[in-house]
Amino acid sequence: MKIFLLAIGKTQTDYLRSGIDMYMSRIVHYIPMEFKILPDIKGGRGLTEEQQKEKEGATMMSALQPGDAVVLLDERGREFTSREFAQFVETRMNSGLKRLVFVIGGPYGFSDAMYKRADGKISLSRMTFSHEMIRLFFVEQVYRSMTILRGEPYHHD
Amino acid sequence: MKIFLLAIGKTQTDYLRSGIDMYMSRIVHYIPMEFKILPDIKGGRGLTEEQQKEKEGATMMSALQPGDAVVLLDERGREFTSREFAQFVETRMNSGLKRLVFVIGGPYGFSDAMYKRADGKISLSRMTFSHEMIRLFFVEQVYRSMTILRGEPYHHD
Repeated sequence: MKIFLLAIGKTQTDYLRSGIDMYMSRIVHYIPMEFKILPDIKGGRGLTEEQQKEKEGATMMSALQPGDAVVLLDERGREFTSREFAQFVETRMNSGLKRLVFVIGGPYGFSDAMYKRADGKISLSRMTFSHEMIRLFFVEQVYRSMTILRGEPYHHD
Repeated sequence: MKIFLLAIGKTQTDYLRSGIDMYMSRIVHYIPMEFKILPDIKGGRGLTEEQQKEKEGATMMSALQPGDAVVLLDERGREFTSREFAQFVETRMNSGLKRLVFVIGGPYGFSDAMYKRADGKISLSRMTFSHEMIRLFFVEQVYRSMTILRGEPYHHD
């Protein structure tokens, strides 16, 4: 199984990009993972929130393949502990799934089409964090989940 | 009112320190805030988890003043949305409180004495994050809370 993280637009903030790159370089020792940056929506500032969500959704859909398990990082999603998240990933690793795709939404959330396509929704916190910061939080959780599954000492609880 | 964030030990990770410094420099335009780093516990590696928690607790207690409102960032704490957190801070700003002190625990949590001293507990997420990363998450939430209270466009929901 390979894990994908999809997000719209490059990580602009240098310090976050450093952290993300560091965790990505650690994760690939455990499991194939790709952080796939989708292109920014053109004309974004002239669009309504609804139009922007639709266009982002279309870009996300075009990056998906039939058979992908698609999980949205969404404030209305289920909250996991780190151990529960590790089990969530492990169950899918053991199921024969080829691609487990996590998707970070734009500032206004996901399009209806993406909600329909999704197999699940995960919330990292009830709090809202910047969209770029969520990228860092999420890759740290993927790294943590791998150390939990291997019984390595990174995670305390 | 002044907000304090207490944590044990310097932030070792460069990219996190960059982000923390950036948010701290923004926050002080809204409210006085100090990130107070307490010294590492000496002989930490020779101590049991319980001994380390006790020593960390004593160091934290020595940084507190009578009348401080003390809030632990603790996985067993209450989960807030960003708006609820902003209201939590605002209520204390309006109460005549002088010092609102948030405390980040060590890797094994807080001592019993700190739990007894605390006026409340907040959980940022059901997930566990690295102790240094929590510093970044938290200062971003304080910044976000200030923009929420001022009605500034940083926060969407």
